[in-house]
Amino acid sequence: MAKSDQNRYRLVCFIVSVVLNIFLMVNLCISRKPLSWSAGAAAEAEAVASISCSGHGRAFLDGFIENGTPVCECNACYGGLDCSQLLPNCVADADRMSYDYSDNSYISQELEKNIRKLHAIVGNAVTDGRYIVFGAGSTQLLNAAVYALSMNMSSPAKVVAEKPFYPVYKEQTEFFKAKQFEFHGDASLLRNGTSNTNENVIEFVASPNNPDGNLKKAVLEEGPYVKTIHDYAYYWPHYTAIPAPADEDVMIFTMSKLTGHAGSRFGWGIVKDKNVYENMLKYKSLADSGTSKDTQLRALKLIKVVLEDGGRGIFNFAYRTMSGRWTKLKHVLSLSKRFKLQEIPLLFCNYSRTVKGASPAFAWLKCMKEEDSNCYEVLHHEANILGRKGSSFNAENRYVRLSLVKSADDFNLLMDRFKELVSKEEQIQTTQSSEL
Amino acid sequence: MAKSDQNRYRLVCFIVSVVLNIFLMVNLCISRKPLSWSAGAAAEAEAVASISCSGHGRAFLDGFIENGTPVCECNACYGGLDCSQLLPNCVADADRMSYDYSDNSYISQELEKNIRKLHAIVGNAVTDGRYIVFGAGSTQLLNAAVYALSMNMSSPAKVVAEKPFYPVYKEQTEFFKAKQFEFHGDASLLRNGTSNTNENVIEFVASPNNPDGNLKKAVLEEGPYVKTIHDYAYYWPHYTAIPAPADEDVMIFTMSKLTGHAGSRFGWGIVKDKNVYENMLKYKSLADSGTSKDTQLRALKLIKVVLEDGGRGIFNFAYRTMSGRWTKLKHVLSLSKRFKLQEIPLLFCNYSRTVKGASPAFAWLKCMKEEDSNCYEVLHHEANILGRKGSSFNAENRYVRLSLVKSADDFNLLMDRFKELVSKEEQIQTTQSSEL
Repeated sequence: MAKSDQNRYRLVCFIVSVVLNIFLMVNLCISRKPLSWSAGAAAEAEAVASISCSGHGRAFLDGFIENGTPVCECNACYGGLDCSQLLPNCVADADRMSYDYSDNSYISQELEKNIRKLHAIVGNAVTDGRYIVFGAGSTQLLNAAVYALSMNMSSPAKVVAEKPFYPVYKEQTEFFKAKQFEFHGDASLLRNGTSNTNENVIEFVASPNNPDGNLKKAVLEEGPYVKTIHDYAYYWPHYTAIPAPADEDVMIFTMSKLTGHAGSRFGWGIVKDKNVYENMLKYKSLADSGTSKDTQLRALKLIKVVLEDGGRGIFNFAYRTMSGRWTKLKHVLSLSKRFKLQEIPLLFCNYSRTVKGASPAFAWLKCMKEEDSNCYEVLHHEANILGRKGSSFNAENRYVRLSLVKSADDFNLLMDRFKELVSKEEQIQTTQSSEL
Repeated sequence: MAKSDQNRYRLVCFIVSVVLNIFLMVNLCISRKPLSWSAGAAAEAEAVASISCSGHGRAFLDGFIENGTPVCECNACYGGLDCSQLLPNCVADADRMSYDYSDNSYISQELEKNIRKLHAIVGNAVTDGRYIVFGAGSTQLLNAAVYALSMNMSSPAKVVAEKPFYPVYKEQTEFFKAKQFEFHGDASLLRNGTSNTNENVIEFVASPNNPDGNLKKAVLEEGPYVKTIHDYAYYWPHYTAIPAPADEDVMIFTMSKLTGHAGSRFGWGIVKDKNVYENMLKYKSLADSGTSKDTQLRALKLIKVVLEDGGRGIFNFAYRTMSGRWTKLKHVLSLSKRFKLQEIPLLFCNYSRTVKGASPAFAWLKCMKEEDSNCYEVLHHEANILGRKGSSFNAENRYVRLSLVKSADDFNLLMDRFKELVSKEEQIQTTQSSEL
């Protein structure tokens, strides 16, 4: 090759290489998808979907897991690790469509397992040897429990709750107008009567209580005629100290107050008695044919993330936020003679291993002045604050419930309004005195 | 520069360029995520999440959309396109957590809009000027409708359905044991009585009917005392010709029979009367505080995909599949004197603009021999086929329902079993004759 040819050859190689460089760099920039937080979930979804199971089955993220990876769940009449074996003499099932998981339940076993793990770590409920039933939030499970408990009763059950109580207990029980139960008001009115009679009673107990945030026990003693539904929506380290694992017959929990995903509508019941559990499953089956699988998958992911660091991330953050809000509110109202907050005692928390101050989901505010008998109206008209009336909770309207679990924007606005209101207090008092 | 230096310099440049090429190629291979079908959804999710809304709001994929892109939905008391304006004199809402969409409903407006579009394209229901309510599948909406219709009745309603009818109508109505309604059996028994009396009646009408796949009208005439719930779960081009848009007072549809996502639990009701609609919303609110947002987002995506090609993709595929299954089953049973399938008339379909043959979701099989009075047992014991008994549908046990909407594996096995059974027919007939 002549020298000039060799040079030309080298030059061409170099140019080709540089062009290739430019091409690759452009390609790299274009092909680098801008995915960040969703990339892991997307890859996980594609990985599980790509498991072929011989075309006779599927693997699911919320299905059966072995050694951390999803395994094939075979179509009816197929078996083997990859679903390639046709099972002999298997029944040709032409009954119903598949609404359920491959074990014929409406419940993801993987999600149930993680819920048990969560309670073990937090120490807020005993789940060993207990049945777990899923529902569309605690709202549905409360009603399922009332149906389940009253189904085997010989006469209609009186449904009660000690005041102040969460309004849905009454509204829901009354709405469903069932022959076998009826809402009967305040549980304390029955306290001294039931043990002598054979009246059937179902008592709702929320602990921490909605609206006042205090830990509660049932007013009535459980027995053959008295059953209790424990609403533990707020029994998490965000809102209260956890003195001991709850160990009641029927306990209701919900995702909405654990991670804030109220719109996902997911809750669970922990049930001791097999018959009550089966009645609740029957309710679920006839009410809506099981809990949405999309929702179950979402709940599974959320709980797995909570469990990753033993719950420290979410529980520390949420406790800090809630107790911070409580402290701020308390500080502002300490300057007022007109309003009083509920008292919540210091308690040792088994989860955080410390004595914990109050961090309730709600302020249960009392208007102290005689003329302020409607505290809701006082806040609404004088401060443009929207609470919920005491009468909604079967209590006096001198009380009003204020939610502290809303967004930071909502809480900050609430604080601003209270600061104004309290700073005007003296002036208002003067004005009112002169008016009287 | 000396010639050798120049050469060395060129060589270094060339080597650097080649090394860079190799580096870029390796990088390209590693960075190219193996995402395929999920990449679009992941990118869509990240894009909407990255809209900051000034920290005082959020944009959602199933929230408000303008010109095809999600817009900011501001926190309470914030406004403006990017939620940056604090609204003066706005109420500080300390009432409840956000279970709902920003218009305070449990219903994604975007999903509702797409449902209306779907019905317009398919031509199977009138939605103009109608209210739409969401539920956890049609199962829940059926019960919500019974509650809603009976709430304003002066005396308890008799709930009826013409036989053969879907068992859930009876099971569900009986389970909820409400004071204001009671299941009363076959609608035809009331046919000649109600118009003269003031008895309140609610009639369930499934069209196409479950189990027999025929288009049906109500047996009883609607009026002040007679209300009807139309169950249109199967009124889609997969299962039937669509002769005209349905235009009834209360119409129930479900995702489960449209796209097959039974496990997602999503259905909707189309309601003429505002009061009935509001009663259904009340039911939903007290039964489970609204439909899961995860489920609504899933349903929205599914319906958008259906709409992309005007439904042709899914409806052509599903009709081909269902009519193919029906033809195969009919062919095998045409060789039998023992079993008979229901007749489904040819009808002009307004969606496909053709006369369509049968493509029902279920075979409603009749055992013709006198001694085969329990057709379910015949199939179970002689052919290892599991159907559902006629008596479940308030019909004779000489009938059995076989689902044709299961997986291809299930259907193929069913066909194999029928082929065997029919081929044994003569031999069995001989054996049975000699036994008698």
